[in-house]
Amino acid sequence: MSEVHMARRSRLRERSTATGAADGTAVLVSTPANLRYLTGTAPPDAVLLLDPDGYDTLVTRASGVPPALGDGTDALRVRALTAPGGDPVVTAAELAGRGRIRVLAVEEHHLTVARHRALAAVAPHLRLADLGTAVEQQRLVKDEDEIAALRIAAEITDQALGELLESILVGRTERHLALELERRLIDHGAEGSAFPTSVGTGRNSGLADHVPTDRRVEEGDFLTVRLGARYRGYRCRIGRTFVIGTAPADWQIQLYDLVFGAERAAREALAPGAQYRAVDRAARQLLDAEGYPDALGRAVGAGVGLEIGEDPLLSPEAVGKLDACVPVTVEPGVHLPGRGGVRIDDTLVVRAQSDGGPELLTITTKELLAL
Amino acid sequence: MSEVHMARRSRLRERSTATGAADGTAVLVSTPANLRYLTGTAPPDAVLLLDPDGYDTLVTRASGVPPALGDGTDALRVRALTAPGGDPVVTAAELAGRGRIRVLAVEEHHLTVARHRALAAVAPHLRLADLGTAVEQQRLVKDEDEIAALRIAAEITDQALGELLESILVGRTERHLALELERRLIDHGAEGSAFPTSVGTGRNSGLADHVPTDRRVEEGDFLTVRLGARYRGYRCRIGRTFVIGTAPADWQIQLYDLVFGAERAAREALAPGAQYRAVDRAARQLLDAEGYPDALGRAVGAGVGLEIGEDPLLSPEAVGKLDACVPVTVEPGVHLPGRGGVRIDDTLVVRAQSDGGPELLTITTKELLAL
Repeated sequence: MSEVHMARRSRLRERSTATGAADGTAVLVSTPANLRYLTGTAPPDAVLLLDPDGYDTLVTRASGVPPALGDGTDALRVRALTAPGGDPVVTAAELAGRGRIRVLAVEEHHLTVARHRALAAVAPHLRLADLGTAVEQQRLVKDEDEIAALRIAAEITDQALGELLESILVGRTERHLALELERRLIDHGAEGSAFPTSVGTGRNSGLADHVPTDRRVEEGDFLTVRLGARYRGYRCRIGRTFVIGTAPADWQIQLYDLVFGAERAAREALAPGAQYRAVDRAARQLLDAEGYPDALGRAVGAGVGLEIGEDPLLSPEAVGKLDACVPVTVEPGVHLPGRGGVRIDDTLVVRAQSDGGPELLTITTKELLAL
Repeated sequence: MSEVHMARRSRLRERSTATGAADGTAVLVSTPANLRYLTGTAPPDAVLLLDPDGYDTLVTRASGVPPALGDGTDALRVRALTAPGGDPVVTAAELAGRGRIRVLAVEEHHLTVARHRALAAVAPHLRLADLGTAVEQQRLVKDEDEIAALRIAAEITDQALGELLESILVGRTERHLALELERRLIDHGAEGSAFPTSVGTGRNSGLADHVPTDRRVEEGDFLTVRLGARYRGYRCRIGRTFVIGTAPADWQIQLYDLVFGAERAAREALAPGAQYRAVDRAARQLLDAEGYPDALGRAVGAGVGLEIGEDPLLSPEAVGKLDACVPVTVEPGVHLPGRGGVRIDDTLVVRAQSDGGPELLTITTKELLAL
């Protein structure tokens, strides 16, 4: 993997030089997911300094080289601070200040004002510029190894969910079901959960980020589960809503069909060249027309990879177009206060029609099952 | 609880006015744990604006008032943004810019450079100052309700650990033991884990932040577990090391006695008026003398409350003295690469000698048990 990381760093270096920055521009990366993308590791508070001459240094707080590194094959130097109170940002700025670097591009959307100030203080002749979301943009389109990791994450997630559906659910609490799902993710080989597992039953069903409570599953409830595995750092999301026990009531069938239709519309809008906002609109206009203008919240979905909810955001305000090999979620839902609701989430990879169209990674059925 | 939060906000307002800031200074709090301390809730990206006239506004990103609020009894106004892309920081700055506020004190150690810039852009005549860690300092000494929550968190943690010790351990993986401990915390009433549960066996024992692996527990291993419950937002930590199966080897007994001695020395150094660094030194000098100068890492322990590892840091560089009613951890350890090691962590509350001395919250035995 270390050659992959080196190639990613070279690409970032070329891009940050190409976009107007003169020779003498170094790059300082501090966002953990960006660090992991560029080096394979992300120790707490670590930063990565890319020097225009091609020397890359990972500065870490804790002593000891991270286990993923240190073989020297990817031309990454690792410098671990020994002084307990030192800040890797400050050390990186000192290193940069010694060379012929004149401009240091930092991630202003991640660095705190205090760290930025400390950095300016130790290297006063460096001009600090904003790297913006250059690394995030580079992370948008995934290579086949990244997509393979996501595919495995989705398989693990489908397995964990499938097993839960075979067990007795009535009488169990949201909290316990969520814990059991997380244990099953690990059983099937996940490193952990991609995000906190959400289980909502009855009036709690259909909520986006419901924190599981001690409410027990009852006959006639809608039950919404949202979970995802993390595998080699890559995260996916699935969400499904079921009816417990009896045949669903009419209102449940109608609401389910509506959300399912919106979810399908968003999935079908996924194509290389499609505008981000068009994917959102495909689902939003269906929910709007049925009297749920605020159901979707901020966005119908977002990119996934080393983070859940990374770029692109599939929202009404988003500007940009999808590329092939961009994995995203679509995750519409409608919640009726006091009654409950429906959410259906999938993770897909954008593919050209000639390659079979969007690749669905989370394949658990979306029929309305009565469990 | 809302009166408690209102009183805390009044105290913060008085302090930020007293420390040289003239009339016309407003305070903008963005750190999640500080928000929770001052309002009882901390929605994602929310900020709290304390206006010098005593009007407090919580600006949240998501629509909908957080369930913990909205009863109007604590004089806190809640403003939820409806535009999906809006930033609560910008809205708070607009609100501040309309009044007679001249100075806005922000948390520079938490606010990103990008948000700080956005804030300056919307309210150009406001002078931005640094609030520093004023709220963190206010959080140091806990009231009896906070200590009661910590006491319950510790009881839950002791129960979860006690049950694990009664079960068969040989042959089970670190990962499964960690998950089982987390499930038991929930069973006993925790909201969740205070921090990711760490289980390390054999050569992984004694490490500070070991991420559980698929290594199985074997006869003769040291087994280190570190866990803690979160209860009403308050977090504690316990860490214990055991020997598996047989009687411990001589090197295991010696290492255990050394770490136990260091841990006891740190506990005994906890007293109102004791310097932070003196607590660290009490443990560090014992480990140094036995040839483990780097074993302790950054600090022997730290404050606990709404966060694990909050102020004060009990480190060689820390400047300051303990007060009564400050809950802290002491958590020394020694790890021998390739062999394993010992960690022993407790959560205690600093109390005067006349009140019985330090109050131990995590009461699980520290004898070297062979399980």
